[in-house]
Amino acid sequence: MTTRPTSATPEHDDRVKAVFNDIRATRNTDYINNLWRMLAFDPALLERTWTDVKQVMATPSHLDPLTKELIYIAVSITNACSYCVHSHTAAARAKGMTDAQHAELLTIVALAAKTNQLATGLQVPVDERFDAGPVAHG
Amino acid sequence: MTTRPTSATPEHDDRVKAVFNDIRATRNTDYINNLWRMLAFDPALLERTWTDVKQVMATPSHLDPLTKELIYIAVSITNACSYCVHSHTAAARAKGMTDAQHAELLTIVALAAKTNQLATGLQVPVDERFDAGPVAHG
Amino acid sequence: MTTRPTSATPEHDDRVKAVFNDIRATRNTDYINNLWRMLAFDPALLERTWTDVKQVMATPSHLDPLTKELIYIAVSITNACSYCVHSHTAAARAKGMTDAQHAELLTIVALAAKTNQLATGLQVPVDERFDAGPVAHG
Amino acid sequence: MTTRPTSATPEHDDRVKAVFNDIRATRNTDYINNLWRMLAFDPALLERTWTDVKQVMATPSHLDPLTKELIYIAVSITNACSYCVHSHTAAARAKGMTDAQHAELLTIVALAAKTNQLATGLQVPVDERFDAGPVAHG
Amino acid sequence: MTTRPTSATPEHDDRVKAVFNDIRATRNTDYINNLWRMLAFDPALLERTWTDVKQVMATPSHLDPLTKELIYIAVSITNACSYCVHSHTAAARAKGMTDAQHAELLTIVALAAKTNQLATGLQVPVDERFDAGPVAHG
Amino acid sequence: MTTRPTSATPEHDDRVKAVFNDIRATRNTDYINNLWRMLAFDPALLERTWTDVKQVMATPSHLDPLTKELIYIAVSITNACSYCVHSHTAAARAKGMTDAQHAELLTIVALAAKTNQLATGLQVPVDERFDAGPVAHG
Repeated sequence: MTTRPTSATPEHDDRVKAVFNDIRATRNTDYINNLWRMLAFDPALLERTWTDVKQVMATPSHLDPLTKELIYIAVSITNACSYCVHSHTAAARAKGMTDAQHAELLTIVALAAKTNQLATGLQVPVDERFDAGPVAHG
Repeated sequence: MTTRPTSATPEHDDRVKAVFNDIRATRNTDYINNLWRMLAFDPALLERTWTDVKQVMATPSHLDPLTKELIYIAVSITNACSYCVHSHTAAARAKGMTDAQHAELLTIVALAAKTNQLATGLQVPVDERFDAGPVAHG
Repeated sequence: MTTRPTSATPEHDDRVKAVFNDIRATRNTDYINNLWRMLAFDPALLERTWTDVKQVMATPSHLDPLTKELIYIAVSITNACSYCVHSHTAAARAKGMTDAQHAELLTIVALAAKTNQLATGLQVPVDERFDAGPVAHG
Repeated sequence: MTTRPTSATPEHDDRVKAVFNDIRATRNTDYINNLWRMLAFDPALLERTWTDVKQVMATPSHLDPLTKELIYIAVSITNACSYCVHSHTAAARAKGMTDAQHAELLTIVALAAKTNQLATGLQVPVDERFDAGPVAHG
Repeated sequence: MTTRPTSATPEHDDRVKAVFNDIRATRNTDYINNLWRMLAFDPALLERTWTDVKQVMATPSHLDPLTKELIYIAVSITNACSYCVHSHTAAARAKGMTDAQHAELLTIVALAAKTNQLATGLQVPVDERFDAGPVAHG
Repeated sequence: MTTRPTSATPEHDDRVKAVFNDIRATRNTDYINNLWRMLAFDPALLERTWTDVKQVMATPSHLDPLTKELIYIAVSITNACSYCVHSHTAAARAKGMTDAQHAELLTIVALAAKTNQLATGLQVPVDERFDAGPVAHG
């Protein structure tokens, strides 16, 4: 079930075609997954979203590719985004996530949610030593 | 501000004293931060929570210590737990998180939240290839 | 899948019948959608919920009907309420939401989620100029 | 810090005065807490909110008053509503919540959040036996 | 749809077998529901999760069994965990939740979410009288 | 309280200076609010975030400026982002939001959260007529 129809021929639009081709090249696959097909109703939104994802997730950086996927999954679980949990768990596995790492990711995500609730339930004040200070208005 | 008073002498309780001493030893510090001081009103809850955190976060495992903190922060941000964001950001920095890694963590967390909203807003159906199959009832 | 059975003859209850008839009249349709059919197990809950929705969403007010639906969708996406995203996106389209407006709604919702994460991750203190002052206890 | 100023003389408005008086009578106190003082900027919003709260929380029903507060706190913690966690924890204590019950409430809330994350992370399909069936369209 | 495959013979692992048998004995049923079958990919995670759930939910304590389920459902709804809403609503009904109590649970959960939004939207400051004071560092 | 220190001289960095100057010009003010000051620790993150916000919120489009702020606030409330609720409520007021519109925004946001909970609690299945169909893989 979706909230809007998709085109059977999205690549008749040149901007969509360009993004789809870049997805294929970047990921080395012919398959365009449903998120991109649905975003294609608005080529500008598709372009901006893909540009962001490519830049953040598919460009070498200060965190390794698997760590980035684990962080992505952690947020997606917490936001209860079923689609994103599925797609990024598949991506993490493709990037080498082992069963033991998957179990550990779930364990940390569950523990964090648990202590988040405890801290919020008790309204624990932040320790002064955790404070990095006020914002400078030079 | 808190939702319940704390004791000025929590370590008069032997179970609390034992947990506090283990926190000091495990973290190599004399400082007991506010979460543990507040949980001390119920020694059993304090014990179970510390046991969980120690086992998951302070025991060598399949993910490195910094990666574990990054995942913890990602969940805490998404749950809007102010205390946990503060304490685990401090912990991540103590474990070597650089400015560039911090910026990248925030970037991924923000991007994930963004695409979570897009996927949920469009109600994108999960691609069959992401499905690991039904649950076996052997 | 549901968490409780629905009656095949909900309108044998006079209170349910009255609400269903008011929904039909207000929305100018014979169709009663699943939310109302499920709420019918408790006529008082059904009445209160419909009264609220009718008063807020179907009564001329200080915001135009489409803007009200856009706000409703924004909350429903953020709460990951699949049913509500579907029903209110359909409602927004019925009230004239164009494709460009839908794309823009999704863009704003995604951007807000992104900057929410950044502000929470950095624990940005509120600027004094945004503060409307303390609560007067006259 | 607030997002809008409050009046120093809210009870100069007759509708506000009536609600405030009803709060005082229902709760047997002279104190009007900040939520109601802030809602007073819009008498209709104040009236509707108080009517709801009074009807649900201050009227004898099928759940006892303390159980109702515990449910209210559980939601408020999960939504990270600092104000509501504070006010309803105070209310629960006024209705007899013991320290042991408070600890248990926090334990259940934390456990639920934990298993919520596990179920969402694994995308566990709902067992058929939990399904109450389709919605009847008689 | 799931994010990882399940074994058709999970009980060939002795630790999984022990947990499954304890679930059967504790719940007096032969049925092992999907959450446990999926967690079985990591016996340690399965053991820890079941130990927690059994200790908190299936051991006599300061809150009665039905109240505990109602709190669990409240959190699960707020976290939009479809699986948990289904499984714990079924559990609550098995523990005697009436239709009227179910309607009331939903009413309170919905009201709490509503006032959470109002308090957060207005950024209502916490009343001093709700504050239990600073954290003692004796 | 913050999670990282800010520079007293952020504009010694040319990229930060350029963004700050563009904020000043776009908003016609000398004041740079705390979010931007904190993001300045990573000029690339600052640039990307400002570019997004400027393009989406400060460029004429298919939704009027006030409607865009209302949607932004709705998401920020639901995500419990205190900073964002404050800053965007101030922005909405600067763009002409009346008291009556503010009250109505809060009313809709609260109502949506309420019915989100009801729909999720009952696990209401999506009506077929709300479905826009499967994703085409042409």
